[in-house]
Amino acid sequence: MTARPENAHQTRLLRLLRDDGARSRAELGEVVRLSRSKLAVELDRLAELRLVEPAGLAASRGGRRSSIVRLSPRLRVVGIDIGATSIDVAVTNGELEILGHVSAPCNVREGPDVVLDRALDLLGKLRGEGLAEEIHGAGIGVPGPVSFRDGVPVVPPIMPGWDRFPVREAISQRLGCPVLVDNDVNLMALGEMHAGLARSVDDFLMVKIGTGVGCGIVVDGRIYRGMSGSAGDIGHIGVDDDGPTCVCGNAGCLEAHFSGAALARDAVAAARAGGSAFLAQRLEQAGTLTAVDVADAVAAGDSVAVRMVREGGRRVGQVLAGLISFFNPGLVVIGGGVAGLGHILLAEIRGVVYRRSAPLATGNLPIVLSELENTAGVIGATRLISDHIFSAP
Amino acid sequence: MTARPENAHQTRLLRLLRDDGARSRAELGEVVRLSRSKLAVELDRLAELRLVEPAGLAASRGGRRSSIVRLSPRLRVVGIDIGATSIDVAVTNGELEILGHVSAPCNVREGPDVVLDRALDLLGKLRGEGLAEEIHGAGIGVPGPVSFRDGVPVVPPIMPGWDRFPVREAISQRLGCPVLVDNDVNLMALGEMHAGLARSVDDFLMVKIGTGVGCGIVVDGRIYRGMSGSAGDIGHIGVDDDGPTCVCGNAGCLEAHFSGAALARDAVAAARAGGSAFLAQRLEQAGTLTAVDVADAVAAGDSVAVRMVREGGRRVGQVLAGLISFFNPGLVVIGGGVAGLGHILLAEIRGVVYRRSAPLATGNLPIVLSELENTAGVIGATRLISDHIFSAP
Repeated sequence: MTARPENAHQTRLLRLLRDDGARSRAELGEVVRLSRSKLAVELDRLAELRLVEPAGLAASRGGRRSSIVRLSPRLRVVGIDIGATSIDVAVTNGELEILGHVSAPCNVREGPDVVLDRALDLLGKLRGEGLAEEIHGAGIGVPGPVSFRDGVPVVPPIMPGWDRFPVREAISQRLGCPVLVDNDVNLMALGEMHAGLARSVDDFLMVKIGTGVGCGIVVDGRIYRGMSGSAGDIGHIGVDDDGPTCVCGNAGCLEAHFSGAALARDAVAAARAGGSAFLAQRLEQAGTLTAVDVADAVAAGDSVAVRMVREGGRRVGQVLAGLISFFNPGLVVIGGGVAGLGHILLAEIRGVVYRRSAPLATGNLPIVLSELENTAGVIGATRLISDHIFSAP
Repeated sequence: MTARPENAHQTRLLRLLRDDGARSRAELGEVVRLSRSKLAVELDRLAELRLVEPAGLAASRGGRRSSIVRLSPRLRVVGIDIGATSIDVAVTNGELEILGHVSAPCNVREGPDVVLDRALDLLGKLRGEGLAEEIHGAGIGVPGPVSFRDGVPVVPPIMPGWDRFPVREAISQRLGCPVLVDNDVNLMALGEMHAGLARSVDDFLMVKIGTGVGCGIVVDGRIYRGMSGSAGDIGHIGVDDDGPTCVCGNAGCLEAHFSGAALARDAVAAARAGGSAFLAQRLEQAGTLTAVDVADAVAAGDSVAVRMVREGGRRVGQVLAGLISFFNPGLVVIGGGVAGLGHILLAEIRGVVYRRSAPLATGNLPIVLSELENTAGVIGATRLISDHIFSAP
């Protein structure tokens, strides 16, 4: 079992070293406001626990040179991001810098036994490369609502067989380390907080547009999960009573209008209707179309594809406009596979939001595309478990 | 200047006595987990500060009878709730029980000088009745966004002349006590937390339907105000691009569809169009109609009025359905003047929400009408300032 810090000072020191990297004792003492002798006690104890170690001497600031402390380079944290159609697994050091990352297609509908085995196989590959002898903790994201307290998915609509499956316990037993489970979008939000565009923002929204649409909510620097763990479930907000029927049985949900799945459906329809020569050709070649084909069509200047993305962006903007009036965030980050559609999508979302939200809520509000690509989820997963193992029990 | 508690133990003791009333020293010691002697030190100090006092002996629990402690009965807190068209002022004791409450019509558009004078006149009346010799603090609610940190309204749409007016400083100087200012709906949420239906709920929404529509958001037992103090500003969420033009310039905002103002407008139109004999007669008598006339028409079984309320409820439900999917609250409380329309309105709201929100978010979600009538705002105002004066500086 990995050592844990024993008090709030040690917790603070570990998180500082994680988030800002190696520092001199003098700098650490100033930030945590401990006397030189008290700081030495805590750092010595953390070194005994093999959580930190010395790393040479700092440049002189006039007096004796202060020694530098860093997190133990042996620390290894694992992030597993289970999506609807893929798994990402990463191993990081204690600073949550990615040392190795693998991604593989995998259908979450195959159920927890198959999917979790697949995830551990992928992790095994990384460990086979010598990346992680000992694992100090793992965070796992799944594409549905989670009871965070119990570490289990709860009535997840696109995950048959996963309802209340003990994901946390199962993986914790197999890896022999602490594990935490959360919704995939919540973890993307944590990833943006740790390594992305939300580093200095306390209240923000992370909107994921992938196969479905979801939202991570951060209040005061912490994930807000709601009463039953379903907060941020915005994919089924109604935008149009006469819209397409959704998998949930209602009509006109956001996801039914715009998501990876909706784009694929609309692309096939456009190809068959003869509206887009580009998409028709792709469909003939591949027998099916995905959001990636739409992105390629947009890049090739296909006007039907551009219109699909603009209309989708308008629907997303319509929902976000209301949520932004309600929540008054400091930042909105758009991510997920479909966010790869880029600036046409973003421009349309911004246009609707800036026109329809309360002016006071949008006055200083940046709406931006994530820059973490497919790493936000795995980094967030490592951040989740790191916050746990870097806290006093 | 009123004394303030000096440490976290004293803060905790004062809030316990405020929220649960007089208690024996034995009971207090158990709750705050202090030894008998340490508890005695803190309580003696609070008595010296004239914040608490002894109140007799408790019934025997087997050994020596424990003495009862209560908040000083001399404590007086003031709540001022400035609405669009009325002012409520209340004086409470330390337990925030209303000792006197006056309400008067007043148009917030007359500007801060006139309106605040009027509020202090009303308070003067209550003081004239001997209710409050010394005032220990005052909370003030205004019908618009507030910079809580600065104690000033910020670009409030229906409050010309109030933008950045120093409400907190002005009233604090005139009353000679600590003052805090917040949005009126936030204070209603605090009122529900203190004395209403939200006493044991950490995450909930307080929806006010009055002249306009607004929402108070409580996260983890605290008001969530958002980045610029405008969180909960749901009145201008769009529900229908082809809807009536709103005062904000957009079309189809929730408030333009349903609010006290919208109901009055629709009632006049219905009366003139000859659809409702009841409303036509009222209009002839009074020359104008308000939401109260619509409520009377509903009570008299007027089908046009009932339909207006049902359609309005459907619009409110449409917006709330999305916000509930997003926020996953533990409770939704509906209040404000128009909530007086009662169960027809509530049934319509519930119907839409339970049909359209994420099932996991509504599984255990009560949607209820406030039972505090017009006192939620003033009680919340006293709670706001009480939390402040019952905290260590």
